[in-house]
This record gives sequence, structure tokens and C-alpha cells, in this order.
Amino acid sequence: MTDFETYTSIEHELEHEVQHECGVFGIYAPQPVEAAQIAYYGLYALQHRGQQGCGIVINDDGLFYEHRDLGLISQVFTPEVIGKLPMGQIAVAHTRYSSAKSDHRANCQPIIVQHIKGHTALAHNGKLTNSRELRDELELQGSIFHTTSDTEVISYLITKERLTAPSIEEALNRAMHRLKGSFSLVLMSSSKLVAARDENGIHPLCYGQCTDGTYIVASESCALEACSADFIREIEPGEIVVFSAEGVHSIKDHCNKQPKATCIFEYVYTARPDSQIDGLGVHDSRLRAGACLARRHPADADVVIGVPDSGLDAAIGFARESGIPFEIGFLKNKYIGRTFISPTQAMRQNQVRIKLNPISSAVRGKRVVMVDDSIVRGTTCKRIVSLLRHAGATEVHVRLSSPKFLNPCYYGTDIYSKENLIACKYDTEGIREYIGADSVGYLDLEDLPEIVGVKDCAGFGGSCNGYCCGCFDGVYPTELPKDTGKRPYETKLSEREAKQ
Amino acid sequence: MTDFETYTSIEHELEHEVQHECGVFGIYAPQPVEAAQIAYYGLYALQHRGQQGCGIVINDDGLFYEHRDLGLISQVFTPEVIGKLPMGQIAVAHTRYSSAKSDHRANCQPIIVQHIKGHTALAHNGKLTNSRELRDELELQGSIFHTTSDTEVISYLITKERLTAPSIEEALNRAMHRLKGSFSLVLMSSSKLVAARDENGIHPLCYGQCTDGTYIVASESCALEACSADFIREIEPGEIVVFSAEGVHSIKDHCNKQPKATCIFEYVYTARPDSQIDGLGVHDSRLRAGACLARRHPADADVVIGVPDSGLDAAIGFARESGIPFEIGFLKNKYIGRTFISPTQAMRQNQVRIKLNPISSAVRGKRVVMVDDSIVRGTTCKRIVSLLRHAGATEVHVRLSSPKFLNPCYYGTDIYSKENLIACKYDTEGIREYIGADSVGYLDLEDLPEIVGVKDCAGFGGSCNGYCCGCFDGVYPTELPKDTGKRPYETKLSEREAKQ
Amino acid sequence: MTDFETYTSIEHELEHEVQHECGVFGIYAPQPVEAAQIAYYGLYALQHRGQQGCGIVINDDGLFYEHRDLGLISQVFTPEVIGKLPMGQIAVAHTRYSSAKSDHRANCQPIIVQHIKGHTALAHNGKLTNSRELRDELELQGSIFHTTSDTEVISYLITKERLTAPSIEEALNRAMHRLKGSFSLVLMSSSKLVAARDENGIHPLCYGQCTDGTYIVASESCALEACSADFIREIEPGEIVVFSAEGVHSIKDHCNKQPKATCIFEYVYTARPDSQIDGLGVHDSRLRAGACLARRHPADADVVIGVPDSGLDAAIGFARESGIPFEIGFLKNKYIGRTFISPTQAMRQNQVRIKLNPISSAVRGKRVVMVDDSIVRGTTCKRIVSLLRHAGATEVHVRLSSPKFLNPCYYGTDIYSKENLIACKYDTEGIREYIGADSVGYLDLEDLPEIVGVKDCAGFGGSCNGYCCGCFDGVYPTELPKDTGKRPYETKLSEREAKQ
Amino acid sequence: MTDFETYTSIEHELEHEVQHECGVFGIYAPQPVEAAQIAYYGLYALQHRGQQGCGIVINDDGLFYEHRDLGLISQVFTPEVIGKLPMGQIAVAHTRYSSAKSDHRANCQPIIVQHIKGHTALAHNGKLTNSRELRDELELQGSIFHTTSDTEVISYLITKERLTAPSIEEALNRAMHRLKGSFSLVLMSSSKLVAARDENGIHPLCYGQCTDGTYIVASESCALEACSADFIREIEPGEIVVFSAEGVHSIKDHCNKQPKATCIFEYVYTARPDSQIDGLGVHDSRLRAGACLARRHPADADVVIGVPDSGLDAAIGFARESGIPFEIGFLKNKYIGRTFISPTQAMRQNQVRIKLNPISSAVRGKRVVMVDDSIVRGTTCKRIVSLLRHAGATEVHVRLSSPKFLNPCYYGTDIYSKENLIACKYDTEGIREYIGADSVGYLDLEDLPEIVGVKDCAGFGGSCNGYCCGCFDGVYPTELPKDTGKRPYETKLSEREAKQ
Repeated sequence: MTDFETYTSIEHELEHEVQHECGVFGIYAPQPVEAAQIAYYGLYALQHRGQQGCGIVINDDGLFYEHRDLGLISQVFTPEVIGKLPMGQIAVAHTRYSSAKSDHRANCQPIIVQHIKGHTALAHNGKLTNSRELRDELELQGSIFHTTSDTEVISYLITKERLTAPSIEEALNRAMHRLKGSFSLVLMSSSKLVAARDENGIHPLCYGQCTDGTYIVASESCALEACSADFIREIEPGEIVVFSAEGVHSIKDHCNKQPKATCIFEYVYTARPDSQIDGLGVHDSRLRAGACLARRHPADADVVIGVPDSGLDAAIGFARESGIPFEIGFLKNKYIGRTFISPTQAMRQNQVRIKLNPISSAVRGKRVVMVDDSIVRGTTCKRIVSLLRHAGATEVHVRLSSPKFLNPCYYGTDIYSKENLIACKYDTEGIREYIGADSVGYLDLEDLPEIVGVKDCAGFGGSCNGYCCGCFDGVYPTELPKDTGKRPYETKLSEREAKQ
Repeated sequence: MTDFETYTSIEHELEHEVQHECGVFGIYAPQPVEAAQIAYYGLYALQHRGQQGCGIVINDDGLFYEHRDLGLISQVFTPEVIGKLPMGQIAVAHTRYSSAKSDHRANCQPIIVQHIKGHTALAHNGKLTNSRELRDELELQGSIFHTTSDTEVISYLITKERLTAPSIEEALNRAMHRLKGSFSLVLMSSSKLVAARDENGIHPLCYGQCTDGTYIVASESCALEACSADFIREIEPGEIVVFSAEGVHSIKDHCNKQPKATCIFEYVYTARPDSQIDGLGVHDSRLRAGACLARRHPADADVVIGVPDSGLDAAIGFARESGIPFEIGFLKNKYIGRTFISPTQAMRQNQVRIKLNPISSAVRGKRVVMVDDSIVRGTTCKRIVSLLRHAGATEVHVRLSSPKFLNPCYYGTDIYSKENLIACKYDTEGIREYIGADSVGYLDLEDLPEIVGVKDCAGFGGSCNGYCCGCFDGVYPTELPKDTGKRPYETKLSEREAKQ
Repeated sequence: MTDFETYTSIEHELEHEVQHECGVFGIYAPQPVEAAQIAYYGLYALQHRGQQGCGIVINDDGLFYEHRDLGLISQVFTPEVIGKLPMGQIAVAHTRYSSAKSDHRANCQPIIVQHIKGHTALAHNGKLTNSRELRDELELQGSIFHTTSDTEVISYLITKERLTAPSIEEALNRAMHRLKGSFSLVLMSSSKLVAARDENGIHPLCYGQCTDGTYIVASESCALEACSADFIREIEPGEIVVFSAEGVHSIKDHCNKQPKATCIFEYVYTARPDSQIDGLGVHDSRLRAGACLARRHPADADVVIGVPDSGLDAAIGFARESGIPFEIGFLKNKYIGRTFISPTQAMRQNQVRIKLNPISSAVRGKRVVMVDDSIVRGTTCKRIVSLLRHAGATEVHVRLSSPKFLNPCYYGTDIYSKENLIACKYDTEGIREYIGADSVGYLDLEDLPEIVGVKDCAGFGGSCNGYCCGCFDGVYPTELPKDTGKRPYETKLSEREAKQ
Repeated sequence: MTDFETYTSIEHELEHEVQHECGVFGIYAPQPVEAAQIAYYGLYALQHRGQQGCGIVINDDGLFYEHRDLGLISQVFTPEVIGKLPMGQIAVAHTRYSSAKSDHRANCQPIIVQHIKGHTALAHNGKLTNSRELRDELELQGSIFHTTSDTEVISYLITKERLTAPSIEEALNRAMHRLKGSFSLVLMSSSKLVAARDENGIHPLCYGQCTDGTYIVASESCALEACSADFIREIEPGEIVVFSAEGVHSIKDHCNKQPKATCIFEYVYTARPDSQIDGLGVHDSRLRAGACLARRHPADADVVIGVPDSGLDAAIGFARESGIPFEIGFLKNKYIGRTFISPTQAMRQNQVRIKLNPISSAVRGKRVVMVDDSIVRGTTCKRIVSLLRHAGATEVHVRLSSPKFLNPCYYGTDIYSKENLIACKYDTEGIREYIGADSVGYLDLEDLPEIVGVKDCAGFGGSCNGYCCGCFDGVYPTELPKDTGKRPYETKLSEREAKQ
């Protein structure tokens, strides 16, 4: 896999318009285990959180062995690679999404740094809101950076504190005073595994244990199950959990300082339906969203279908609540393929068919309710509606299992500005017209508490107590970055030097 | 991709216990088109019929350019490879299943042969029942073989006839007198595309046309849609269809000589739900099977779930007929991964979880009807039932949308003998016990006509007029191979020589 | 390695203008040995005879395992591939040159064919002069061909005879009556290794034995040494040698029917200097050629240099005979690289420098004798002379250790017609002017006996008794092909069919 | 190419027992050029200085594009990779040797760092003698390290100075006060190329210019020729040369502070014979060494041969001085291959034959003088002597074109301790006996001035004025590292942390 992959996969072409988060994973075992294989299974379960690159670092009695590259888990971790990684007691691993700008092998995580007190491997899911300030401050002290990632900034802060702190966990505890924004971290020293979550608990992080005593930390509970680990609990917002020869202990200096504000979009779209977050199954929350939607925007139709994969659960909820039969409207091709520059316009328009195939006999001559989780730019939705009509649907009623996506996310989802958001450009009727549907219905902001089973809706001022609904309601749990424009860091640096 | 791939993919580990057929694909265009790209899309849509290898041969003004290899379409046909193949008016392509014994690059199709009247490329789906006799006869005339495939035998027979026949289609027409068993063929000469189907029409084959006039021939209609071609019709049993500069014409000398006997397992499992065969949508036939099953084996349960992917359609049919709510019981990991020799027994038992993940919140505390298409050896079914129980299901009622699999298939499906078939070893109660379910219910032989919408059930003596149900009822439309034991051809040859 | 490799390697760019022969290799061991590793070493030693593709077939107790592909030995036979090939008692292997037209994986040897009496693997060095007639004859009997190679034609003839012959060696013995032209063969059945050489013995073939009793057959003796085998003897012209459980025995029905006519160009260029052919070391013959050249075309010069690699030996012979000091004039880059379409003409002209680097301090201000083995098209020689002048040589006297190359070769060397031969276009003065040298001197036809140590010069009418000097003198030991034009077989076939 | 390459190539098996230096390369062009292609040619010419990894960083109008990996130039820079790198005005490139311990992709150079004033790419040949002190000092300030390389240490020092220095070159100028040991650097900012050489000028560095005005900086002059650049001059010891839009200018603050001490081993072995260093051709210096050797240790013999590649030039010098004929004693296989764990001891002993093949006819029955550049451990020399005897040499007189290798090198050559040096274990007679030669003769320390054309031998106290002969005489131009034991950095770090 070179650093310059340019071909577009069909997978990518048709993937959700919102880019995912990353996934982190950690292992602490009482004795050496096949850590690379366990991490492989964990990453494999977390791959929906980031498909562009991945990495595993194994700690074999204090020595670190790593492999990281761009590509899918199965491409990067071939049997040959896995076979050459040693057994180990501790490991950290990462799967990532990367924007085209940073699609570079050097940015793959976990990153390993060497410092005065040893070496550390760090993997991170989230996004700091003050990373530019921190980076500027560090650079003014003469620091050099190899990557453009927040992970390297966090590593520096921990290392600086490590000069005086008595342990790696205390260094992290001190550094966390400087870290603003979202972060779910796993960190490995020569003898410990440390996990930490930001004070708002924006992204999930949990841990469990295998029958042989091995502890597993992961972004989502589905990764625990993939390793046959029993779920123990979520890491609390602001908590640091240390796994070492002394057992498991917590540092809670940062707990309960900020209101909990878990990303509600994890339930709507990001997380896997078989995961549970804060005691609530993701599948269940989507069923509720579908039911809620059926009440808010009923439709006079013959069948309810879901757009695979993230619209399926809500579609079943809608079907049950409305009494309209659920159908399988699409076959999703399970193989990963590519699109090419096609000879004819006709074929180009139909490339969506390669990945998503309408089942004509399920929709022909029928009034269809098509449930999806959200609309971002609207182009994919428009194409899917067109496919359904071409397959014979007489009416297409689009129902979205979340409110309108109106605001950027500052915590790791790839929505930087309002300009690409269709809901910022058009009202509901305009959206309906753009995507070519017969009707369009969104969840309302006031429905959000219901889908996560929350009664009280005060919170930090947003729609739903305990949850960040910033992308829907524009209310954020933290200070925002001072400069929110998307400005590539490289260019800035070049400009600075060029002026001299 | 070397000839000696040994690692087992998770995909393979968990794939259906019945190995698929192959898929064939052909193009005839009035002027040169991007035939490699079109064939790529076609093969991509047919990949469920065979994932071990694939090939495309392009006819660029009489010169043949080919690329064939073991691997998935996206692995074999990288952008680099596609980019180096020329445009062409005609092409044939193939995707194949191969048993481990013949997992060799040389056996990839289409095969190209050079002969007295030019060269021919041939791709074949099916299995001859008299291939050993034909091969022996040819060898006794001094013929040499490069592969162990039926395709080479068919090529020889056509070439022999071509010595005296006025055209390639007439050579095929004459050769078909010798071919017994099942075959859906696409064949390319320097100026023609020819498609043919055996006299019983055992496997499907159809064609359509794009708006630019390009004809597409494919094993299933879903491949026509992937190329934006409109479906025209099925090739009839025994029909030869010729696509050339003179247009499209048929040779029907072999039509109506044998009763039509389309493989009913194509509807049950092999074909894609968005394909239609003989005017009947595969999805529809599965809904009917599910409904029929709900009437024959009702269950007192809380939810109905399907085993992805082939059990989903029938599960919806079952749910509708029974009134029990349909649920999404499993998340199927969409990435292709691998399993490893695992450190602990506990983990090994759970490897099925890597690919198939039960959604606990959907089944916990519930009585579950689990619908699948069939049980072959029973090991996968046993593991899935165990997963459901582990996820909290209180009862698991297994329902199969086909009758018991009791007999080998001689027409291309990888079931050679009765010894691996669980239904040959146990009665229904024994099966229930083996897989650990609370109840098990199969479709009955007499339900088969209903799932394909047939009233009259005489046929050639089997369960369902117009369909081969041999694997269920043991009645076959053709003579059977004289030696049905699985005996590797190589060994036989070695023995013969060794005796001298 | 795909079938469509298009980039030009520097290696290729600067390689000798005469394309090499192929190399064949065989193993027969009394018990199973690491045949793949032994064959790897053998092919590695023979790689100068053909770099485009290679293959090994192992006989593991009657079952054949093969791996063949385009590419260098080290690219095709990676440790993974070697590791997956089984041990075996018998093996055949091949390394090949291929013209661009036939640069196709399917043409890689050895080829395996299955026939009435078993299976056979065959590797072949040489070229039949009647292959078109034989192929036409076979095709008229309905034979089909998978490749365009002579090897498949030979396989057919042997197989036809095998129907009635009592053994594989007798089948070959009978088939040899039909084979005209040059062939050095190794052939493997389920229990035997057979080696054979054409009646004129045009290309070399010899065998030896390791201390553990394993027999090795190879195109050149250097491959025996690479496997630590002691040289036993050459296979005689027309001889068939059979290695089996009964030991080694010969069939000599075809011996002494034709005059021996070993290709003299093997000594001049093709073979490796550390090989010996017919009891004469190749290095020695080149020293003699250099000495002879010094007497025939003396030069008043300061240093003698050789063009690596094939001009070095003769340069030493020239230096010794003339008393002019030998120098190292060029450094040849040992790494394999590539050339690109360069930005400037200046750089393009200097691409030869990337592979061949003049050592300025060795030639600056000096009158240089530059010895090479031959000039074919003259373009490479012209570039090398220019490099020397640019490095400061005051005079460049080109001396060629062979006579003028004036005639095509019909026995496997890639010189099909006179049109590209500079010696057919210009006289010596014209050649001197074209390549920009101060003087040019060739060996004379009457010098040829001396370089191979032959006194008497009658032979079959050519320059040198016992040697084919056809490319120099135009006298050939066999009938010539009826159609000597280079006409791609594929096109012919297409034309034939197109007419119908 | 994974990070865990384990197979040993034959190339490696037989490569010189002294590991090479690295090579650096830089481009500064007045307008964008095909910098990747030019750098490819440059690295290709420098590949003898390091074959384990390579990298190119292109500056396209201030943005940096890089590709680095383990492997040969032609493996890492495939046409696809080169094609995806943009044109640029500036570039730096590197080819490296790496010990097994640091055989990791992250250690590939050039490294890119981002800092307060922009970003910098740096490539380095040499070894600091105070790198551990510098690293400890930086870590105590909280610095983190991603690699174990000196290059990252140098980057930090430059960056720290850059905080206050007005330009990148001034930052380097200030940082050089802290750098002890050897370094030949190329460094690229967003708008400049900077080259620098340590105060002793231990390793070479020179620059030249193409006809289009492009400047090329390279470790050896042969790389200038590969890019068609005309040699201008060497960078002086201690000099910083800046290439920018303002032209070329020098900073000479560090010049003439230390005695020049160019590594004499560059002439003996490291550099390519067609390069010139300090106005002296490497080939010439080797001819002189050979002649000097013939006078000091004459032999009564029939032929003189050189061990390819580095013994050939001296062998010619020996032959000329002694009057004994020069011969080609070995054929070196030009293809890169691999050795395997062999079935028999006999074959294992002969693996050296695979790469190096004695030409029997050149040595059989003869008394041979075998010239090589040096003996390190003695094992390779022993095997080569044995090969010659097996090929029939009656006497083998080994002559070494350098003095005894008695001391470790602290400046980049992979000789860390005396324990592996055969000359530290045995006297000359003991060495003769170990390698099995009839006689052994080394150059004397007092011969060293002659081979580099120096009259006066005072210097900094060593054997040869202006040259470091430390590996021969134990006199070094700089302070030595405080801890000379080979202690892996990783382990040290782990220990430190483990103690807490």
C-alpha cells in the first residue's frame, strides 16, 4: 500500500456522507498472550469506525513491536505480518478514518514516542479543540512534529509532565488539565496499560475481561465480544483507568467536573447496532427512533424499507409502530469493488447500483417508506430514491431517524462547515424536491431524549441531558476552537517561513 | 496471488456449507466499448456464485487479451490490470468456485484454445455427467489436457466438430449431442459471441441490451442491471443464441427434447434475491417459502430473525404469515477477515462471532424463530444457535426454507456424497438435538411447487414440474455419472502409468 | 506480476541486442529431496539464458506441483512459494526469454499435459523449423492449443506416439522422427526424467551427479556446479537419456545421423564463461578469440577495455596478445533499475550511464581498444563509444570477438530478418562511421575454428567443422522453415476464421 | 515490504563483511523539474552505499510529498510510486544501510519535521559521537523521539536554534557547534536546499550542475554523472552551502577549525571506482594500492585475479606492477537471489558458489594471486580460497589492498568492537592458516599516503595527513563516544522506567 492511493473504491463512493470516528483498543494480560491476534479481532470489530488505516503495537517484556499502514485490517495485517509479531502482555491498537489531506502512513496510529522515562505508545479517538494553541506553544519551545495529529500533541504534553510526575498515569492526569475537546485514549508504557476519557465523555470507551484474566479496553463493546471478553463497564467521563501488575485502579480527579455529554450521533449512526453505550443497546435506540418517527411523520404506504446498513434498525421500528410491512428493499453487495471512469453517462449514473441493488419484486408497484439515519449532502439519498423509482416504486417517502444536520462537529466527525449541509441550504420542501421524494420527514429535536431513554432535558443547555446533540442543535459542551475554518496546517507553516 | 494460498479467510470459515456454482458473462457490442470495465461490473454482481478466481478475455478486433487469476474480482482486476486491457467489441468472463484440490490458476476460466479455424474463448457454469467418458475417448485419440476442467473437454468436442462444421455455432450445435449434464456456456470466436444452455436448462442464463446496443449475457439478471442493460429474456433450455454482425439469431435443434429442469436450489440459496429466473423474482420465491414454512411449522415465539444473508427473505415471509415481529438478529461484519490458530479454546469457539454478531438487545429474554435456507453438515447452524442462546434468547426455533438435503448434486454444487449430510444421519429430532435448538422445522417436498408458483407436479418424475429437486427428492433429470465417487483425476492417471 | 507488464527496465534497455536462448533443468533423485530449492539454484545459474519467466514442476510421488510466472527467478520463487512446494524425487524447470508478443504467463514453461497414459511435464530450449507444419497437421486432426509454443507441439507428438509406445522414452524416440530444428528437452513422467538433444546437438545439454546420488540435467555446466553436482558428460546429439529407478540408460537411435553442429554463438555470447561445452571452457574460447583478434586487427593504443559482461574475457585475450595493458573501463551497476520518460533530451541521451558507468580516470587522455562480442543493430555500441569519448578517451578502437552478424538464426535466437542487422546495411567503414569509432575490426570467418580449437574446417559446408556458424556464414545444418517471415500466429488464425 | 523482513538474500549472504555508509542526495532547480525521476537516478547510483531502505521528499511549491520504505530503490520506487510524486524545485533523498536492530520503516530517511518556523526534511550520512549526550539533554527538556536515529537529534538541535536564528542555514550553523562526529547532510526547507559537512570532512559530499541550471548535491560524484550534472566541487569540511532563489552561497564559520580527516576506507572500499573524492579518482587510488602491494608482498605466481567487485581494480594494479598476467577468476551472478536452509551440508557449504563462480579454466593448474580489499571476520575469504582450490588452483596467495583492520569505526561503518576482527585475534600466519591460503600479504600503514597521493604524513597524529585511518591505526580525529558498547537504546529506556 503506497502513500499515494488514488483510486476510488465503490465502498468509498457509496459510503455514508458523514465520515466516521476512529476506534481504539488495548490489551493487558497477566501473562504473554497472542496479543496480535486478539488485537486483530478487536480492530476487525471496530473497523466501521475507520477504514483508512490501522496499527498494532505489542509490548513484549518492555520492547515494543509495531506494524501500521494504510488499508483495511485484512490488507495491513496479513497472516505473514501477524505471524512476525511476538506474543506480549500489553498491546494497543487503532483503526482510523483519515481525510484525503492526511492520508499518509506517518499519521497512522498508535504512535510510539521515546522520552526520558522510557517509551510510550498512544492511540486516540476524538479531536482536541485547543490543539492549535497547544501545538503553537510546544513549537515555541522548540518542539518538532512528525505528524499533523492531535496524538502527537497529547504525547508531548504527557512527556513534559513525565519529567516530574512519579508515574505515567500521573503524567497523564496532569496533562489532562491542558486537553480540551474529546479524547478516548489508550496508552501503553513498558509495564502498564492506561485508558482515559475526556471530562465530557464525548466518545465511548469501555473495558471487559476474558476468562483467562486478560483485560480488553475498546471504543465499543462489540470489540469485547469479538475477543470473547465479558463487558465490565464504561470508563467514566474524566476517568483514568490503569491496568498493571498491581491490578486495576482508577484516578478520578477529572471526573464530575463537566456535565456528561456523550455524542448522540454514536447511537444514530457511528456505533455498531450490537454495541451498547451507557447501558443502552444501539439497536434498541434505533428501534425507538424509528417508532418515534412513525408517530411524528406517518405515511400512507405499502412497505417500509431501510437503507443498509444504518437505516435498517430504524426501519423495523417504523414498520412495527406503523403496522406497514417491513421489506428488504436493497441487496448490498458484500464484496469491495471499484468504480472506473465509465464510457457512457448512462453507466456512470448507475454506478450506485454496483454496491446497492434494489430488489424490484419487493418495491414494484408499491408505495415505499424508505428509512435512513440522516441526510448530509443529499447526493447519495437522491441517487437511492432514483433507484427505487426505476425499480418500480410508485411513491417514495423518505424518513430520517435523526433531526436535521445543521451544524459542524468539532469532536472528530468530518463535518467542518455548514456549506455542504443540505439542511442549511433548503427547507424540508426544498430537500424533498432535491432528492426527488414524495415526502420527507425528520425526527424533531424534542424526540432525542426518547431515543436514548432520557426523561429530563436540561443538560448543559442542549436538547438532551447527558448527550451532545451539537450537530443537530448547535449547543456544544466545550469551548470551540478559535479558528474553525479548515486550513491545512502544512500551508500555514509554509506561509510563515516564506515570509522571512 | 500464488497458486498455493493456504490461509483460511473468516469469509470462508463462515460461508455457507454448500459451495456455489460459477457465473458466466458475455458482451457483444456493435462497436468497441470499455469491455473490461463492463465485465468487471458484471463479475462483481455475480461474485456470490464463486469467489475463488475470475477471468476476462477481451476480443480486440480478432486478437484476444486475457487476464485470469485466483482471488476476488477486486484483487485480480486492479485498476492497473483493467487499464492495460484494450477496448473490444466482444468479451467473455467468468467467476468461479473451486475445490481445494483444483485451486490452481491454470483452471481459471475463460479458457482460450487455438485450433485449425482460429481461436475460441469459453466460460462454463455447470458440470457434465459424462466428462470422464468424453475425456477418456479424447485421450485415446491422443489428445492432451492442460486442466482437469469440463471446459477443456467441451472445447475439444467443439474443435473436433469445427473441422467440418461451417461455423462455430454449428460446431457447438453438433457437439451438444455429446454433452450430458448441466452447462450454461458463453463462447467467443474472433467475430461472434455464442451463448448456450443445456437441454434441461439446469442453470440459469439470460441476456439483455444496453441503450447503446451492447448485448450482455449473464448467469443472472442482476448482472444485467449492474451494467445498466435491460433484461430481454432467458436463454431457453437447449437453445444456442448467436450474437454477431448479422444480429441475434437462435439455433433450437436441442430445444424441447428434454423436460425443463431448472435447479430449484438457485431460488433457495444460490441466486441473488434481486435476480429473476424464468420470470420469477428470487426474493419473492423466498418470501413464499417463508410463508409456507410458517403455516407448516408454526412456532410460539416473540421474534423472527433470519440468518444473513440467505435466510433474511424467508424470515420476512415467515414473520408476515405468522404475525410474529421480524427482528434483525445478527450484524454481519462487512469486511473480509481471517481467522488464526487461536491461543485458547474459548476464543476458537467464538470465532464465528467475528463474522456474525448477535444483537443481544434484539433477542435477550425472547423466544426466537431463526430462519435459514438449509442445513448441510449442521456445524455452522449449531454454532449460530449457541450464539443466540449466549446472547440471551430463551428459546430458539430453527426453521429451514427448504426440504431436507438428502442427496448429492451432480450438476455443479459441491455435495458429492451423502456422508456429510446431517439429514442422512439423523431424523428431525436428532438434528434438533445436534444443533441444540428447541424445535426444528423443514419445508416439505410437497411445498416446493408453491415456492416457484407451480401448480402441477408431474415433471420428469420429481417433486416439482419444470424443476430439478434432486438434492431434496433424489430424482434427477439426466443419467448419472457412472462413477460417482470423488476420485482425483491426477491419481488415476498416475496409477495407470505406474502399472507399466 | 500481471500479464501486461509495460515498463522498461534499465536492465532490458541496455541488455545485449541479441536475445538469449532459454535454459532447461531437471532433477532425478533416488529419494525425495528439496527439489524446489535445488531447482532454484539451478535456474539462478541459468538465468542469463532467459530472464522473462520461469517455472518449476515437482513430482511428489506421482503428483505434480507447479509454479510458473513471468519475472526473475527471485521474484517468481519467493521463499513463500518455495516453502509451499513439496519435496520430490523428480523435477523439471525452465527459464525463458520471450518476445513481447508472447510475453504471457500461459507460455511459461515447463508445461504439464494430461493424456491417456498419465501426465507429462516438458521444458524445451530451441526452436523447431517445422513447427508450423506440425501444428497445422495436428489442428487438422482436431487438436486444440493453449499456447503458441513449440513445447506444446512436441507434447502432442509425444502423446500421440504414447498411445502405442511401451514407454514415455520410446514415445519420445518415435516423435523425434518428426521434430526438425533445435531442441534440448527435459521431460518428466510420473516416474522418470528424460533428457534429449536434437540430432545436430545445436544447443548444449549436459548432466552430472551430486554426492547423494541425485542426477542433475542442465543446459549449461555452471548449473551443475550451482547444485554441487559433479559434471559427468554432455548429452550427445540425438541421444535420449533416461533417469529412473533402473538407473541411467540411453537410446541412441537418432545419434550420428546428422553432423554435429553446436551453435558457435554459445561460446561467443550466450553461455556463461564458467561453463564448458564439449570439453571446452567458454572463458578459454573467448580468450582465444581476443588473442586472434589482436593479431588480425592490431591497434596502436594505451589500454584495452572490455564491454561488460560478455566482452571482458576477449579483452583480456586481446591485451595479453598485444601487450597493451588491460584496464577496467566501465563499472556496471549491479542493481536492477528502470528508465523513465525523461524531462530533457540531455538526460535521455545519458540513460545508458545509469547502467554502464565509464571510469574516467582509466580512459582519460588515452587511446582505447574497446572489445565487445558483436554488433547487432549498432545503437548500443554507438552509445558506449560516445560515453568513452565523453569520459576523455582520445581514440576508441572497437574490436569484435566474432565475425559480422549477417544472417538470421532459425534455432532460437531472436534474430528473424536481415533488416535490423547493421552489418547487412553498411560495410566496415560505414559501421565505423555510424558508431563513431576511430577504427573497427571484426574476427574473420576463418578465425572461427581457432576459437573452438578445431583444425579441420569441412563440416556440413560451413565455416567450422562441428559447429553451426549460420548467423555468420549463412550455412545451416537443417532445412529452413518454409515461411521465414515473422508472422504472429494469432493473426493468422483470426484471418482464417474471418474469411468464413 | 513489511517491517519484519526475515529472509536472507544471497546478496546479503555474500556481501562485504563491512557494512556500508549511507548516501545522501539533493536537488535545487530554478523551476519545477521531474525531481522524483532525477532523485531515482541519483539514489540508483548511490545504492552501493546502502541497500536496506531509501526515501525521496519532493518540495512542490512549499508542500512536501514523501515516499520512504525498506527495500531496494527499484522495489520502493516503482513506476506507480514515481508517477504519483509531483514535480518540484527542491528535493532531498537518501539510501541507507541499517543494522537488523533498526531495520524499521520509521527509521528510513529523509525525515520530515514540522516546527515553529515551517517544516524541514533532513537526510544524513555519518554518525555523531555525542548523540547519546545530546539525546539525554533533549529528553530532559521533555522532547519526545519517534526514531533512534541521529537524524532526529540533529533535527531537534536545528529547530531549537531556529527559534531565534534568522534563517534555516543560520540555525544549522549554530547547531553545528553541538554536533560532534561525522555528518554529511542535505536539508530542505520550504524554499532552500542546504548541504553541510562536518568539520573534519569525514565522509564525502560534493555538488554539480545540470545544463538546465539544476544543482545536484550528492555523497559521491558518480551520482552527479547519473543525472548528467557536471561536477563543480566538494563541499569543504565544516562548510554549509545554501542553494536558494538568491543563488549559491557558503557559510564557512566551521571551516579550518579541525584538521581534514577524510575516511580513507572510502577509497579502499566504500566509494564507487568511477567516483572521485578530493580530486582523486577512486579507481586510480586502488590501482596504486595494488601496485604498492605488489612491491611490498611479491608472489611467484601464474595469474592475478581480483575478488569482485572491490578487489578488481587493485588486482590490475598488482598485475601491472608485477608483470604477472591479470585474469578473470570469478563470474559474479548479476541477479539477486536468496539462500535457503539446505538439505545437505554439502550444498550449504557451496552456497557461496551461487553468487560467486570460479572460472575453472582460468585458474586450473595455476598459482594464483587473489587480491581483495580487506579481511574483516575472515569467513568469506576462507570460502573463496576454498572455491579456488576446488576449481584447481595449485597455490593461492591472498593479497589485501589495505592494512590490517584492527580498530572499530565510530563514524558510521558497522564495526563496533574488536571481537569480530580476525586481525585482532591472529597474526598474519594465523590468518593465513585460518583462510587456508599459501601466503597472505597486507599493505603497511606507511603505504597509505601513497595510495591517496600524499607525501607528508603528520596529520592529526595518524598515518596519513588529511585522512582518517582510524580503523587501521587507531588514531581518530575526534573525541570518542563515552560509551562504546553496543547497547540497544530501547532496552535502556525500558530499564529506566521499570525501576520506578
